[in-house]
Amino acid sequence: APAKAPKACQLTEFVGTAIGNTIGMVIANVDPALHDAMKIDKKYRSIGIVGARTGAGPHIFAADEAVKATNSEVLVIELPRDTEGGAGHGSLIIFGAADVSDARRAVEVMLSELDRTFGDVYGNAAGHLEFQYTARASFALNKAFGAPIGQAFGITVGAPAAIGVLMADTAAKAATVDTVGYASPGNGGTSYSNEVIYMFSGDSGAVRQSIHAARDVGKQLLGTLDPTTELKSTTTPYI
Amino acid sequence: APAKAPKACQLTEFVGTAIGNTIGMVIANVDPALHDAMKIDKKYRSIGIVGARTGAGPHIFAADEAVKATNSEVLVIELPRDTEGGAGHGSLIIFGAADVSDARRAVEVMLSELDRTFGDVYGNAAGHLEFQYTARASFALNKAFGAPIGQAFGITVGAPAAIGVLMADTAAKAATVDTVGYASPGNGGTSYSNEVIYMFSGDSGAVRQSIHAARDVGKQLLGTLDPTTELKSTTTPYI
Amino acid sequence: APAKAPKACQLTEFVGTAIGNTIGMVIANVDPALHDAMKIDKKYRSIGIVGARTGAGPHIFAADEAVKATNSEVLVIELPRDTEGGAGHGSLIIFGAADVSDARRAVEVMLSELDRTFGDVYGNAAGHLEFQYTARASFALNKAFGAPIGQAFGITVGAPAAIGVLMADTAAKAATVDTVGYASPGNGGTSYSNEVIYMFSGDSGAVRQSIHAARDVGKQLLGTLDPTTELKSTTTPYI
Repeated sequence: APAKAPKACQLTEFVGTAIGNTIGMVIANVDPALHDAMKIDKKYRSIGIVGARTGAGPHIFAADEAVKATNSEVLVIELPRDTEGGAGHGSLIIFGAADVSDARRAVEVMLSELDRTFGDVYGNAAGHLEFQYTARASFALNKAFGAPIGQAFGITVGAPAAIGVLMADTAAKAATVDTVGYASPGNGGTSYSNEVIYMFSGDSGAVRQSIHAARDVGKQLLGTLDPTTELKSTTTPYI
Repeated sequence: APAKAPKACQLTEFVGTAIGNTIGMVIANVDPALHDAMKIDKKYRSIGIVGARTGAGPHIFAADEAVKATNSEVLVIELPRDTEGGAGHGSLIIFGAADVSDARRAVEVMLSELDRTFGDVYGNAAGHLEFQYTARASFALNKAFGAPIGQAFGITVGAPAAIGVLMADTAAKAATVDTVGYASPGNGGTSYSNEVIYMFSGDSGAVRQSIHAARDVGKQLLGTLDPTTELKSTTTPYI
Repeated sequence: APAKAPKACQLTEFVGTAIGNTIGMVIANVDPALHDAMKIDKKYRSIGIVGARTGAGPHIFAADEAVKATNSEVLVIELPRDTEGGAGHGSLIIFGAADVSDARRAVEVMLSELDRTFGDVYGNAAGHLEFQYTARASFALNKAFGAPIGQAFGITVGAPAAIGVLMADTAAKAATVDTVGYASPGNGGTSYSNEVIYMFSGDSGAVRQSIHAARDVGKQLLGTLDPTTELKSTTTPYI
């Protein structure tokens, strides 16, 4: 589904909405008590806030584009256990800036990227698959996944988690990539979600080759649990 | 929805049911092995047990009335990640008493309060908002949120969590209140739920003023994600 | 519901599917980078992987039969917060073996046991109950629950968690059993799920007697929350 047309909302803090029950907002001058409670440095007078019920990978990769494109920093990336009854996460991402226009711009860029980053998300009644790729990782991907800054970086996500294990092995074997991380329901990196996430860097062609191989395998496996539903992209594949 | 009429259940341990798939029970003499396993002091021979699929704030504020009104103590407050596919919590609350009639009474009072404490819960397909207020916090609110005993105390809850951030800032600015806590999906205080909870005390008028301001903002924001559904109270607003 | 007929899946790694959106797979030679990332000893060249959206008890008890019946070890038992919007868990279980035929056999045995181990799972719109029993616990039950190896062992599970508390007390009183563990939403042993799990060992008759008593009580309690639905076994009761 494409991003929804935002409802007219008169609050100056409201920026927009997007796919995945995503909402973007901005606070021009964060209350000092909240600065303390959120453990955010007061030099970030303004914050941009983006949250969603569904999607962590799409949001983190979109946030990465936002920090590349704007004069802001990513302060918080948290992954609630959500997806509205599904097997994965939602997200809460907070940008910091000295100026509200920069915080707003970060939110706008992030929201505008989400249709693209949902492009390799595939779901059926039994679970979901997700693939993300960037030619050059920046600070959001470094903060969330430990991605080496400036390098090509990708992730494969499979739910139920068992499918993610096999996709990880497939990605590791398909090309010469460096393993950056492996997250599973109980070992950290997820919020007890039913996903395995595999993270890897390398040269651009290798990272994409690994994703293509894992995507091909993952679709066949997830299809066995719900044979009557065709696994289609949520928007348009981009990798 | 009002509390369901309890089904005739012949077990002496059964007390009643209420909104939110809530059930209340009592054990007159807890088995010693269970006392140990639950890490509950044996002086509490009797326990009252209230659990729900949906609702943590409503249940904790209702439990607070129960400990005020009865000769019991609140021993356990746990917040499962639940709401039946929604973004928030369920609850498990255990009262201890030396006498079973006291434990039963605590459960009865708590169940009877739930229709009121669900009064400022608002939901749509995209998320939910929750507001709670008491003129005088007691031991359940102290245990769950660190509320100063005897003071007016309130919470704002927004899901997806991003909306809760903006509501927290709104509440902090709307009146002179003291921040007691801030809970988010990944920083503790939630069970990786897609909520931000802001907790504050102050004088009674200030706490209510902050809640009113946050409620006004939250409804506008949550409405942008599901414009066709009117945000109505689950029961009847009380704040 | 019985196990689904597996879709024809051409991947050599695919083994089969079963009830609970369960999938079983095998990797003949795990990639060395994945061995490291998963923290699995390299002597297990081959792994069997079974994951599900719904069910932890049924899967762990089925895995226990698999390790008894095959030349494999259970390396990973993780319990995601899942059940597709329900109150409980899914599962991720990994077997290790030196030889792929042993890993495959473990997966096959486990999948074949699931119809039986779902036999004492009862659900309605408000929650679920689960009971499991073995005359002789082996390594999977020891790893997951601390079950004494070689002894009769059982668990009772109630959701919402409050019902599980009363079932635990009922089981502890019904026969002479030894408490092995008690897991609740916030005290560990669950993944913030809305369940209380009670684990106990003893002689075979006592363990079964405790389960029968808890099952009788649990069905009456869960029925009060959804009086119009009869609580029936997911497959066929076995205890």
